[in-house]
Amino acid sequence: MNELLNEILDSCRHHTNEGNLANYIPQLAKVDRNRFGICVVTPDGVFRAGDWQAPFTMQSIVKPLILLLALMDKGEAYVRNLVGVEATGKPFDAFNYSDQAMKSEHINPMINTGAIALCTAIEGYTYEEKFLRLLDLAKKLSGNPHLRVDEEVYYSEKATGNKNRALAYMLKAYGLVHDRVEDVLDVYFRACSIQVTTEDLAKIGLVLASKGKNIFTDELLVSSDYTRYVNAVLTTCGMYDGSGEFALNVGVPAKSGVGGGIMAVVPSRMGIGIYSPALDEKGNSVAGIKALEQLSKRLDLTIF
Amino acid sequence: MNELLNEILDSCRHHTNEGNLANYIPQLAKVDRNRFGICVVTPDGVFRAGDWQAPFTMQSIVKPLILLLALMDKGEAYVRNLVGVEATGKPFDAFNYSDQAMKSEHINPMINTGAIALCTAIEGYTYEEKFLRLLDLAKKLSGNPHLRVDEEVYYSEKATGNKNRALAYMLKAYGLVHDRVEDVLDVYFRACSIQVTTEDLAKIGLVLASKGKNIFTDELLVSSDYTRYVNAVLTTCGMYDGSGEFALNVGVPAKSGVGGGIMAVVPSRMGIGIYSPALDEKGNSVAGIKALEQLSKRLDLTIF
Amino acid sequence: MNELLNEILDSCRHHTNEGNLANYIPQLAKVDRNRFGICVVTPDGVFRAGDWQAPFTMQSIVKPLILLLALMDKGEAYVRNLVGVEATGKPFDAFNYSDQAMKSEHINPMINTGAIALCTAIEGYTYEEKFLRLLDLAKKLSGNPHLRVDEEVYYSEKATGNKNRALAYMLKAYGLVHDRVEDVLDVYFRACSIQVTTEDLAKIGLVLASKGKNIFTDELLVSSDYTRYVNAVLTTCGMYDGSGEFALNVGVPAKSGVGGGIMAVVPSRMGIGIYSPALDEKGNSVAGIKALEQLSKRLDLTIF
Amino acid sequence: MNELLNEILDSCRHHTNEGNLANYIPQLAKVDRNRFGICVVTPDGVFRAGDWQAPFTMQSIVKPLILLLALMDKGEAYVRNLVGVEATGKPFDAFNYSDQAMKSEHINPMINTGAIALCTAIEGYTYEEKFLRLLDLAKKLSGNPHLRVDEEVYYSEKATGNKNRALAYMLKAYGLVHDRVEDVLDVYFRACSIQVTTEDLAKIGLVLASKGKNIFTDELLVSSDYTRYVNAVLTTCGMYDGSGEFALNVGVPAKSGVGGGIMAVVPSRMGIGIYSPALDEKGNSVAGIKALEQLSKRLDLTIF
Repeated sequence: MNELLNEILDSCRHHTNEGNLANYIPQLAKVDRNRFGICVVTPDGVFRAGDWQAPFTMQSIVKPLILLLALMDKGEAYVRNLVGVEATGKPFDAFNYSDQAMKSEHINPMINTGAIALCTAIEGYTYEEKFLRLLDLAKKLSGNPHLRVDEEVYYSEKATGNKNRALAYMLKAYGLVHDRVEDVLDVYFRACSIQVTTEDLAKIGLVLASKGKNIFTDELLVSSDYTRYVNAVLTTCGMYDGSGEFALNVGVPAKSGVGGGIMAVVPSRMGIGIYSPALDEKGNSVAGIKALEQLSKRLDLTIF
Repeated sequence: MNELLNEILDSCRHHTNEGNLANYIPQLAKVDRNRFGICVVTPDGVFRAGDWQAPFTMQSIVKPLILLLALMDKGEAYVRNLVGVEATGKPFDAFNYSDQAMKSEHINPMINTGAIALCTAIEGYTYEEKFLRLLDLAKKLSGNPHLRVDEEVYYSEKATGNKNRALAYMLKAYGLVHDRVEDVLDVYFRACSIQVTTEDLAKIGLVLASKGKNIFTDELLVSSDYTRYVNAVLTTCGMYDGSGEFALNVGVPAKSGVGGGIMAVVPSRMGIGIYSPALDEKGNSVAGIKALEQLSKRLDLTIF
Repeated sequence: MNELLNEILDSCRHHTNEGNLANYIPQLAKVDRNRFGICVVTPDGVFRAGDWQAPFTMQSIVKPLILLLALMDKGEAYVRNLVGVEATGKPFDAFNYSDQAMKSEHINPMINTGAIALCTAIEGYTYEEKFLRLLDLAKKLSGNPHLRVDEEVYYSEKATGNKNRALAYMLKAYGLVHDRVEDVLDVYFRACSIQVTTEDLAKIGLVLASKGKNIFTDELLVSSDYTRYVNAVLTTCGMYDGSGEFALNVGVPAKSGVGGGIMAVVPSRMGIGIYSPALDEKGNSVAGIKALEQLSKRLDLTIF
Repeated sequence: MNELLNEILDSCRHHTNEGNLANYIPQLAKVDRNRFGICVVTPDGVFRAGDWQAPFTMQSIVKPLILLLALMDKGEAYVRNLVGVEATGKPFDAFNYSDQAMKSEHINPMINTGAIALCTAIEGYTYEEKFLRLLDLAKKLSGNPHLRVDEEVYYSEKATGNKNRALAYMLKAYGLVHDRVEDVLDVYFRACSIQVTTEDLAKIGLVLASKGKNIFTDELLVSSDYTRYVNAVLTTCGMYDGSGEFALNVGVPAKSGVGGGIMAVVPSRMGIGIYSPALDEKGNSVAGIKALEQLSKRLDLTIF
């Protein structure tokens, strides 16, 4: 497997020259665009290649975790009622809004508005506590107790996140957010700034692939009802408005982030983390997707 | 003329039962829906009928004053570059935004986004000063040195104005607003809360109808280039997405506010202020429009 | 006046190099882009300059005539109910359509959908007759009994007008058109292909400027209620999604066509026809607008 | 299994009172809303319950067959280039169209525009032949040589399909359809009118679930690359703008039609056909979805 991973990275490496680094916050634009790494975790072990240990921020990859924690804290009905599950046909940070109303059915957990709204559904007396519980979940699922926020990215997000502020005030204006907007956004900005490696993503992915179990310890970390919820939403909306293409060419639930990471979930088989920071115009890692396409073809990973 | 005005109010009074009071802030919903007044100012004098002296807040009627002051302070090119002049085909507080970009050409001075952006173009070291200069202009044009903010309405607007916050953060995200959003909004919320009577509106309207002159003192208060700019924009966009209907049935530049007031400008002839707080679904005073239709027919006011 | 017109054409001639010829049908792209002519008709006579006698097809300039005839044949209420009057904020051939419904309030007489729908409101046992009655109106208003269809342009429009077919079937699907789509479109395509000169346009404009009268014969050709209707709609929607800009810079009711013509109406004063075939991206004659801006400034034509 | 199916129909039968019969063509509104049937085909045999043998027209369920035949005739690259694969976030018969352009990336094979465009990609000297080849494919996949068009429904569709005509002319205007619109639509209307039973759907579904094989004869009917393509698109877009909800609650590729049928594909395990004609507001069979939810839960069918 390690050999296969190396082979795939090699054959896809030229794609790291395509696309552009995220530039909406300066920190994301500073990274080395040549970094390219992958980690696959299966019941047989952990397999790694390239810059698998390079750190990057989760960005939107944290959205499935926000959804998961909201489900664990409030249950399926509450979450489903707060945020819909249909693809919007629009970019991840678009207003999906018509006739002067923003309704839960217009948003889903994988676009910014949906994820921001779900931050309010996490339990916690304070927003500080809500965030710490989210970080704890990330630590538990990845098995990495050292996960932490990249403070520079966090402050940048906070300083420049005016579009997210607009989205959040819109949610507030339409009653989908009740608390102070800056408090809610603080959780969201910090969540996006959690630093991970491909191994962390692969391990989180494996839990989602294993009906919520840590297959190595056999501990049930999350209800299988919730991993099914998350995997379904990842399949239909996880790769932004490139989700259809990804379903066709890779065929597994997955989530990308503008930090350059992708987490993929191969039900019953494996979790995958991949990293290459240059993005296509939809915000997905160019080389990352190419490598996943190859991996899927080589190992017949598609669920379709 | 006074007789005519009384006659028109009488024949339109039953329309005050139609429509609804603005309910988006509690203060606006508390007013007496039976109030109905009109004031007409012409070179021949001031004519009044009904509750012409009832106070109400300007709300969107302040938008032409914001535009005027921005023009006076920064000139036509600057203003035109910051905020477009095309009708949007959408409600006044809608996002007019597509393909993930908000551009000056998508907004106009008579919708909320445009007016908020123009608040930044008013001169003043502080936003406090910007607002005071705007209030001064309102005083000068209306000849009423006692104009002041209705503090209750202002605080309500500030407390509940989350949709305007969303719009303003969107402007900031796309570089159309540079200053602190809350500072800019503070001017806007205060401006909307300036308390006037129909006489104040009629007098402001007369200045706009007289190429910027106070016809009683012959003093030039505003350049005729700027009154032309304002009147043109009022005609195409002043009555929200009911501007076409209004052009057809009344045929003069006008601006309505959700407080229930309408200011109409009859070029070279008169200024009109009218007040009746119940609104149609587009946000225009129902009885106010009906009365203006009659007045236009009786005095052949249309410019078309 | 002739001198002034020559002066204006000279100073605007360099603008004929800007913009592009309409290319959606081959015939429109074949014309000489250097042609530039103007005609002004006032109670004092007819004034002409440049290629004032060059023939071109009316294209959208026929829309006010379709509206006028529908008003004359069916009355204001019927027409108003069939087609709304608000600006759409969109290009002239756009679908303005949301939530799976096309409603009369979404369309106006100056966009393609509205004009197509209004073709059904013209009286006539056959669509052939409807068209001939429209052509008769054009002849009567222009005082030119020789107006005729440019057959080549007509066949081209018919052959390539698939977007208009789509719009028309949409109207039919939503009950705004009942007759056979191809019959309705045939009137529309022929109407767009009526060949005129700037003098024809100026004379039609003068009737609209004179409350429906032929000021030379004192004959009332159209009710002043209908010219008011048309002029109002021209002001708010006549220059496509450039109507706001035009109101600001020229300030009179006007209609442009992708053939390169513009007809302008200066209430109580004059009718203007202008021709220069290169268009800006909104579909308006570049040099034509520039010349009208100068003329408006020189003669203070604005109604605002 | 038969017992289980009967049990599920019984427990969901009350849902047949919910929703409405499709009314856009009279024939669809005439059916008995109490009909409720299901058929499941697995390697172990054919299982049936209720009105499994009631005939109904495929309507949109034919879309995956159109896609499949286009793939078989022209290959993946051609098809992918002609019609995109992203969910649109809009109803199945909506225009997904912005900025005056309709592009292949705006449409997918499961909405009307996409399916109409794909009809042109089926091989055949005439459109008659194209349709017969499509019907042959339906016969081959269902193993039912007697499949035929319901002529009454076909003529109704043809007579009333003006919205589809509008969509098709739009495709033509933007170069996504080249042939005569009525010819292309004729294939589409006939295809929608193919009459099937739940057993036919279940058998087609089983081929899609079995990588293109007839598992009983071991014959390869379709390349597995193409069934993968179809299943992926069914998952992200198959249930109209209710695809996300369906992925969550049922979790398998599926396609519904406004005739009341649903075909579901459980990869490697089974094909399902279900029928109950009353639809929810998105156009999906109400009781059909409920029964599939139960079946999925009882047999743990979800792929997530």
